[in-house]
Amino acid sequence: MIKHISHIGIAVKDLDAGIALYEKLGLKLESIEEVPSQKVKVAFFPCGDTRIELLAPTAKDSPVAKYIETKGEGVQHIAFAVDDLPAELQKAESSEIRLIDKEPRPGAHGADIAFLHPKSTLGVLIEFCKEKH
Amino acid sequence: MIKHISHIGIAVKDLDAGIALYEKLGLKLESIEEVPSQKVKVAFFPCGDTRIELLAPTAKDSPVAKYIETKGEGVQHIAFAVDDLPAELQKAESSEIRLIDKEPRPGAHGADIAFLHPKSTLGVLIEFCKEKH
Repeated sequence: MIKHISHIGIAVKDLDAGIALYEKLGLKLESIEEVPSQKVKVAFFPCGDTRIELLAPTAKDSPVAKYIETKGEGVQHIAFAVDDLPAELQKAESSEIRLIDKEPRPGAHGADIAFLHPKSTLGVLIEFCKEKH
Repeated sequence: MIKHISHIGIAVKDLDAGIALYEKLGLKLESIEEVPSQKVKVAFFPCGDTRIELLAPTAKDSPVAKYIETKGEGVQHIAFAVDDLPAELQKAESSEIRLIDKEPRPGAHGADIAFLHPKSTLGVLIEFCKEKH
């Protein structure tokens, strides 16, 4: 079951510029975390029961760098918080939604995550996320 | 002040296909509304304290049709719910954020809305939204 939106992932070239913008808009920076497996540095801004996550690449071959190269800066993915990640993946697959990750893998904030393929989800990169807390 | 994320606007070519997808993912369709001023039909899916809003063009010159033509289907805007829309617009402008709408205008669900220019917001089309309820 989807409980709420865990976060909205926004690709930015420069993390400091992104942080300055969302602070201007009135959000409060919660923390910054590096996710080496994804070659990104992430800044978290809580907003209601969800978060804005700014994603800045730390290497040229980071998936986020490739995203910015082809699509430009902007919303890169939406993450839905689910209660049972393997069950949701199985349900999606049985509904003929293509999975990028057939098995959960570790994400930021100690969560387990898996991505669905945007070719099956009308162009939106969707993440299912089992939050730690 | 930003209170929470009011909604995430997702551009789709075909509203029925969009509705079928988000129902498969486990969300529940709340309502469908046509917004003639924007030449869109909108499907609302509540999710925690926010909503997924699927936006399908009803005419070729709809802003959403133009968005899909240039960028493809996907996340088109993020709407932040604010308590005082004119005050937030003034604050954004004084922070040198360009506004698309200098004055609030009517949106879906009886809300007052205004858009910021994505050239000042790192590629993300941001809406400020004063919700009715």
